[in-house]
Amino acid sequence: MKIGVLGTGVVGRTLGTRLAALGNEVMMGSRTAGNAAAAEWAQSTGANARHGTFADAAAFGEVVVNCTSGVVALAVLQAAGAENLRGKLLIDLSNPLDFSRGMPPTLSVSNTDSVAEQIQRAFPEARVVKTLNTVNCEVMVAPDSVPGLHNLFLSGDDAQAKEETRRLLQSMGWLPASIIDLGGILTARGQEMYLPLWLSLRGALGTSRINIAVMVGQ
Amino acid sequence: MKIGVLGTGVVGRTLGTRLAALGNEVMMGSRTAGNAAAAEWAQSTGANARHGTFADAAAFGEVVVNCTSGVVALAVLQAAGAENLRGKLLIDLSNPLDFSRGMPPTLSVSNTDSVAEQIQRAFPEARVVKTLNTVNCEVMVAPDSVPGLHNLFLSGDDAQAKEETRRLLQSMGWLPASIIDLGGILTARGQEMYLPLWLSLRGALGTSRINIAVMVGQ
Repeated sequence: MKIGVLGTGVVGRTLGTRLAALGNEVMMGSRTAGNAAAAEWAQSTGANARHGTFADAAAFGEVVVNCTSGVVALAVLQAAGAENLRGKLLIDLSNPLDFSRGMPPTLSVSNTDSVAEQIQRAFPEARVVKTLNTVNCEVMVAPDSVPGLHNLFLSGDDAQAKEETRRLLQSMGWLPASIIDLGGILTARGQEMYLPLWLSLRGALGTSRINIAVMVGQ
Repeated sequence: MKIGVLGTGVVGRTLGTRLAALGNEVMMGSRTAGNAAAAEWAQSTGANARHGTFADAAAFGEVVVNCTSGVVALAVLQAAGAENLRGKLLIDLSNPLDFSRGMPPTLSVSNTDSVAEQIQRAFPEARVVKTLNTVNCEVMVAPDSVPGLHNLFLSGDDAQAKEETRRLLQSMGWLPASIIDLGGILTARGQEMYLPLWLSLRGALGTSRINIAVMVGQ
């Protein structure tokens, strides 16, 4: 599958490398065509990897994955271009972490809205699914780095888009039973607002290699 | 132990009943001395149960538990009186769910503040600990109603207060290993902001008998 990965940070590079290793053709997009991090990533990742602008990557991908921060995601997607996102599965795994108030970060959008909802409103012809933002990128690409059955969540208005997302997650090692469909895109608020708890857990437990398992009584 | 339970709703009644059954003397506080729900609860619960105003219950308790909504918690505690909370462990298990915008509820405070922080600031001589708000009251008093080891969280600035809270939770059946100290009272934001995810999970899974287990990799 052709996948456009937007963002050259550790999340984009980690996810891009894994997706390329699984046999997908991956183009990493960045603000400028000659981005050094993207070029280095493409060279070291090999034949399945290439790089270009945000618009190049979005046009290339049958699926587009937003790996930029939630604080800049809308601007990045505007640069990618609505015409390059039309009809496509757009996976948003961003968190709107705002460090401008100091530590701990706050969220630049929360409670009555979410980044995923903003994206879906701004690009109504894209099929937005929120997922993966509740785990560190090392866990995203290697779910067995955390023991036991633990969960990911899906939020999105398009049922078919969520099925396509499930298949992509399963290709990375996520078990079918680990993926919980929360409902429409509005439920992305819960995924994004989980981040402060995740950050506190990381602080208390001293590792980013954590995830939650939802336990259900009879 | 003498425990003041503030609030006559299902949370206060469920927790009060369990604490009385464990041998504690429990006074349920409400806005008015003759509250019918509190009187009925006290009568049906037996010798360990009594009722009074918020101030009566706070004065009575060696420990005070806020079981009112986070939206009214500050007003309730003002009615209880700072002099009746001074030096005491004040367990806050409230969620600031605001239904005025329709469903799903939003939070009346979040992101840059939390109910627990507001309470600690307003009552600096109380020793506030946030816990239990991440589970339904049936799970609070019967952790084995959800299978496996699943977690509760503690947030508070007073280490001794968190130890006292641990002991109270353990008396209700929470295993020592299930209780995670997140840090200071600021980390209550994470516990409170988890609620939208909990609400989505309840909707997706069709039950309130749920909780999360934090899984940690090596």
